Amino acid sequence: MAKRINLNADIAEGFGAYNIGNDAELMTVIKSANVACGFHAGDPNTMHRLCLLAKQEGVSVGVHPGFNDLWGFGRRRIQMKPADLEYMVAYQIGALQGMAQYAGLKVTHLKPHGALNNMAAEDEDYALAIGRAIKTVDPAIIYVALFGSRMQWAAEKLGLRLAREGFVDRVYLDDGNLASRALSGTVLKDAEAASRQAVRMATDGEVTSINGKTIKVEADTLCVHGDEPTAVGVARTARTALEKAGIAIVPLTEMDL
Amino acid sequence: MAKRINLNADIAEGFGAYNIGNDAELMTVIKSANVACGFHAGDPNTMHRLCLLAKQEGVSVGVHPGFNDLWGFGRRRIQMKPADLEYMVAYQIGALQGMAQYAGLKVTHLKPHGALNNMAAEDEDYALAIGRAIKTVDPAIIYVALFGSRMQWAAEKLGLRLAREGFVDRVYLDDGNLASRALSGTVLKDAEAASRQAVRMATDGEVTSINGKTIKVEADTLCVHGDEPTAVGVARTARTALEKAGIAIVPLTEMDL
Amino acid sequence: MAKRINLNADIAEGFGAYNIGNDAELMTVIKSANVACGFHAGDPNTMHRLCLLAKQEGVSVGVHPGFNDLWGFGRRRIQMKPADLEYMVAYQIGALQGMAQYAGLKVTHLKPHGALNNMAAEDEDYALAIGRAIKTVDPAIIYVALFGSRMQWAAEKLGLRLAREGFVDRVYLDDGNLASRALSGTVLKDAEAASRQAVRMATDGEVTSINGKTIKVEADTLCVHGDEPTAVGVARTARTALEKAGIAIVPLTEMDL
Amino acid sequence: MAKRINLNADIAEGFGAYNIGNDAELMTVIKSANVACGFHAGDPNTMHRLCLLAKQEGVSVGVHPGFNDLWGFGRRRIQMKPADLEYMVAYQIGALQGMAQYAGLKVTHLKPHGALNNMAAEDEDYALAIGRAIKTVDPAIIYVALFGSRMQWAAEKLGLRLAREGFVDRVYLDDGNLASRALSGTVLKDAEAASRQAVRMATDGEVTSINGKTIKVEADTLCVHGDEPTAVGVARTARTALEKAGIAIVPLTEMDL
Repeated sequence: MAKRINLNADIAEGFGAYNIGNDAELMTVIKSANVACGFHAGDPNTMHRLCLLAKQEGVSVGVHPGFNDLWGFGRRRIQMKPADLEYMVAYQIGALQGMAQYAGLKVTHLKPHGALNNMAAEDEDYALAIGRAIKTVDPAIIYVALFGSRMQWAAEKLGLRLAREGFVDRVYLDDGNLASRALSGTVLKDAEAASRQAVRMATDGEVTSINGKTIKVEADTLCVHGDEPTAVGVARTARTALEKAGIAIVPLTEMDL
Repeated sequence: MAKRINLNADIAEGFGAYNIGNDAELMTVIKSANVACGFHAGDPNTMHRLCLLAKQEGVSVGVHPGFNDLWGFGRRRIQMKPADLEYMVAYQIGALQGMAQYAGLKVTHLKPHGALNNMAAEDEDYALAIGRAIKTVDPAIIYVALFGSRMQWAAEKLGLRLAREGFVDRVYLDDGNLASRALSGTVLKDAEAASRQAVRMATDGEVTSINGKTIKVEADTLCVHGDEPTAVGVARTARTALEKAGIAIVPLTEMDL
Repeated sequence: MAKRINLNADIAEGFGAYNIGNDAELMTVIKSANVACGFHAGDPNTMHRLCLLAKQEGVSVGVHPGFNDLWGFGRRRIQMKPADLEYMVAYQIGALQGMAQYAGLKVTHLKPHGALNNMAAEDEDYALAIGRAIKTVDPAIIYVALFGSRMQWAAEKLGLRLAREGFVDRVYLDDGNLASRALSGTVLKDAEAASRQAVRMATDGEVTSINGKTIKVEADTLCVHGDEPTAVGVARTARTALEKAGIAIVPLTEMDL
Repeated sequence: MAKRINLNADIAEGFGAYNIGNDAELMTVIKSANVACGFHAGDPNTMHRLCLLAKQEGVSVGVHPGFNDLWGFGRRRIQMKPADLEYMVAYQIGALQGMAQYAGLKVTHLKPHGALNNMAAEDEDYALAIGRAIKTVDPAIIYVALFGSRMQWAAEKLGLRLAREGFVDRVYLDDGNLASRALSGTVLKDAEAASRQAVRMATDGEVTSINGKTIKVEADTLCVHGDEPTAVGVARTARTALEKAGIAIVPLTEMDL
């Protein structure tokens, strides 16, 4: 049986008059889209437009919840009570479910955004709060979690469907966390290097860390980006490389999770 | 067969550290609660708490969408494109559906808040935009519309379930619209006067306007308030008067709409 | 004595991760910049950066107050009490005065943004509220007002310094108001046509309206834009044409107001 | 010469339709008011009203900057770049200076709110960023800093005017920081106990910590609260006790800083 993997990306990262990234092009490369839901980005208009586009491109939509911080684009760490965080995530899940009705789509997955993703990767309380929101609002939703993170642990503990995630164009630390994108050189802008990392994760379940160490990254879904000029090209090249290596790119719902 | 009517009220009108009104007491008087959904009031914590309380008191929950204006508490008229308004309402419906899962409740109805309610009562584009949001996200949701307003017209035109609304403690203009609460004397603070208005609407389908004219108000649901010190007392007295007049107070879902 | 005129433009119209327009280039064309102050656009970082840039380019900074509506980019009409509006404007004046200290600049003028500008052009209460904010916070600030508008009237009534404004790249209605930019063809994208309109306003104090009527537009300052791809080119061409016609482009503070 | 001390409190902690605390009563007890400036609380209307009230009661006004977090009331720790924080504080200083013009008042001091105060007490970068905002926008502004904190260090390092602060109704940790108000028993609600702590700080410069240790708290200003039902009574009793002990209660500007 041929190997399968999912490609996901963050979309709808605009707000009102503003837009970032190249959602329309990215949508032709990925199979699952993480939709910003109004807290760090993504107003109702943007969400509506992207749901229709996802339907048209055969891409599944997921919640991309973020902190309530438009100014900081959800990239500032905020210390919240786990209950506050849980209800904030539940609210964003519901909001996307509402908007997805315009495209007749079911929300398939959830992946936290920015600082929330980083914090939940490390912090059990945050990871569980997100998981409980999924479990309450719609337990069919797949929890997309950085491989080896506290989110993976939380998804397993709560009995949720889990997609372990690897990153095509980001540099890894030795412990399996991502090197901060605030540091230079931690986003792979070279399409070939990113493609090699993608294929190696998909076929061997490993990657070379920032210090040259081989670390384990077993991924059901690979994340690509669209928010930098070179990003869509990187994503497209990586997809082609994966397909050439005999790996089928499928929606999350067609993965064996 | 005994006459039946619904009592509704706006709840969850706090935000973060702030609270207005007496939601817990009001919940024991009404049968359907209009939950603020985060745009003019009502953060995820507040929504969560009120959904649990509604469940406990046997009250059904509905969406109370408002303009994106925390500072103005949704009482400022904002001119939006109908499509923007529609998706803004759809977003709020979804958000409440998400939070209602914590109480295992289905969202039963929708009633616009403040300036949005006033504008949609008069403006066909606004009234239709709200109706289309209902129709797309969940066509089982009942559109609560001021009797005789453009909202009633829009609900009928779109084939939506409709609850025509009367107001227990507000003074009516000759044309059936509400006198602005910015004017003094337009909120009935006398429990007996409000009760008489409630019973007359429920039994005879009419009310006396600000100029002494008899006008038609055929209501499936009567609105009471909780945001002024005297309001819960007024609501309770009106309910007792309705029951004495042989009218059963029931959830919207038990009305014949 | 040579004729003089000012060129102004709206800047700092980004927010957080977002940016619109080409502030750096536009700054080399204009002499007075209208800085968004955080309500419709323009966070503290953006304001800080643009004040430093204005200092470097010899451009004076002014307040560009807008409605509290990031989502609508200040382009939605909001009905506020005049007092609410006045204090909202006063707040934004103060905020920019604070940020301008980083560049050692004094705030020289104020021009309302978007829907607020449109409403204040027509509505005496709005026009006066803005004027009272100026008068209280810093009466040296110049009120930039559409020629012939209620703002011009309010500035005169309150005894404020006034700069009458004309628009280089916008089409005028017969009554001297601007044709809505929501309608196609109402923004002049042809640099030559815009330049002719600019020079005619500056030399003859008149312009041809959308219906071919000659109307009076006596301007102390001409507005150019930077938020569309062609806009900076239009602005630069207009400036060159004005200079060729013997008109000096000067800061507002060097106009005889 | 008689001993003098200042009493300060946080005011303007409402937003739009919402209000917390008893500002009018508190204003008759204190001599310096910390005005919320719109980010965690305090809209332009509230700021305007409180500035007029301060003028009437002979109370000086200061900036009470907080994180951009209305939902969390500024009580959630947010990790920002120091430059972002600095400009955010500068913006809030300017905004209050604008509003204070309505009362003809000069802004006399600055004290951070909630989580920002807690973080700046411990973090040199945060403490310095706030100090640099003061230094740039108005170096006459007094930096109100928890005694012994990094804010005191930053004020001294930057050569700013400094008022060391003690807390009348809060329990101290052994290291001189405040015990979190999230823990029960850490807010003194007993007026006599709070008064004894106030007089001891004012006369002996010391206080008993949560573990019974005597620690040094040399204060130029004492903070009282108004946001709990008992708080104004506690504040008033403490003021009377201080006066009985021969200590004059004066505005910050009459302290020898």
